[in-house]
Amino acid sequence: MRQFVVIGHEVPTDPDEVSLSDLPGAGRLDLLCRCVASGVFLSHGIRESVRVHLVVADELTVSFDSDSLRHLHPDERNVAARIRDALAAKADAIGHMPADVSPGVELRRMGLEATLDRLLDAGGTGASVDPTLVQLHEDGDPLVDAAPPTDPVFALSDHRDFTDGEEEVLAERAERRVRVGPELLHADHAVSVVHNWLDTDGYESY
Amino acid sequence: MRQFVVIGHEVPTDPDEVSLSDLPGAGRLDLLCRCVASGVFLSHGIRESVRVHLVVADELTVSFDSDSLRHLHPDERNVAARIRDALAAKADAIGHMPADVSPGVELRRMGLEATLDRLLDAGGTGASVDPTLVQLHEDGDPLVDAAPPTDPVFALSDHRDFTDGEEEVLAERAERRVRVGPELLHADHAVSVVHNWLDTDGYESY
Repeated sequence: MRQFVVIGHEVPTDPDEVSLSDLPGAGRLDLLCRCVASGVFLSHGIRESVRVHLVVADELTVSFDSDSLRHLHPDERNVAARIRDALAAKADAIGHMPADVSPGVELRRMGLEATLDRLLDAGGTGASVDPTLVQLHEDGDPLVDAAPPTDPVFALSDHRDFTDGEEEVLAERAERRVRVGPELLHADHAVSVVHNWLDTDGYESY
Repeated sequence: MRQFVVIGHEVPTDPDEVSLSDLPGAGRLDLLCRCVASGVFLSHGIRESVRVHLVVADELTVSFDSDSLRHLHPDERNVAARIRDALAAKADAIGHMPADVSPGVELRRMGLEATLDRLLDAGGTGASVDPTLVQLHEDGDPLVDAAPPTDPVFALSDHRDFTDGEEEVLAERAERRVRVGPELLHADHAVSVVHNWLDTDGYESY
């Protein structure tokens, strides 16, 4: 399984503050929606075994599971509507129990640290071994020099840098930091590059 | 210079048929907008020397020039508004003379064939040598085996396959066909992968 944790620093937790006609004004929700689409979609299909987790204001996490998603489309507005539905369901998320928003979409009352701890514990996600946390960071090692781990969890930030607190949480848990290329990419573009890196790994030809 | 020619088969040529609140309904304009954003944007910046050309219904071509763009944002709605402005300016495009829509955005009355012939002629675009046409295609050679050409022009299709007529036009002009990976990607994700391929080419480290 491939997982992406994207930190949305400025996305409102109140669904009434999300206007589908002004996604940039909702804490750059447009970017997060594109991260979801880059994460789960293939041309005319959906990837197997991918989960994208959006951490909202270090308080809530909206998770998309490619294996159970239904009727999601890759345009920003469609994904944003699903995120808004998730925020509207937060009263149903109690403790660490998720609110089921729609098939393949869940919301949990968890910030970055709790989300990472949940994902990195094999028992918690049904994986056979503990997943490996990889931080995507401008100071990381070049992707081209690295071999992909099994069951990777990639952590990346939206248009803002990681905060000092996030850096600390990640440093304690990440096995490595990688940089996708010499240019600094938008988070959604980085997700596409990472997928391609994993897709082509080990292929002599395709 | 890097250029991308994206064929939009179903995008309306009439700006009144483009609703910014239903971009998928405007011939999957959402996908084309993401292709523009993947083509020209870096995190907190814009790439140098990139042009993205959207061929609309084999009749009009809207071109974005990263070196002269102003005030463009990467969200679909913002890019779509610029495309709609371009369609609204088509009366100003006479013969092969473009309509200037806004800084860095032009519209020409050209379909795929005329657009490719314009771009592949070094004299027409100010390049020192003729650019090389590369078709992104599911039957192409793996990207990982290929060395990037100088001044590439990449041709790719939207959610529809290339038509027989387009295949013919491309076959006559393309020096090669490449496939970005074993999975079939959305056009905008393919643009991100191609940029990364060119970005990292020749880098031992970055």
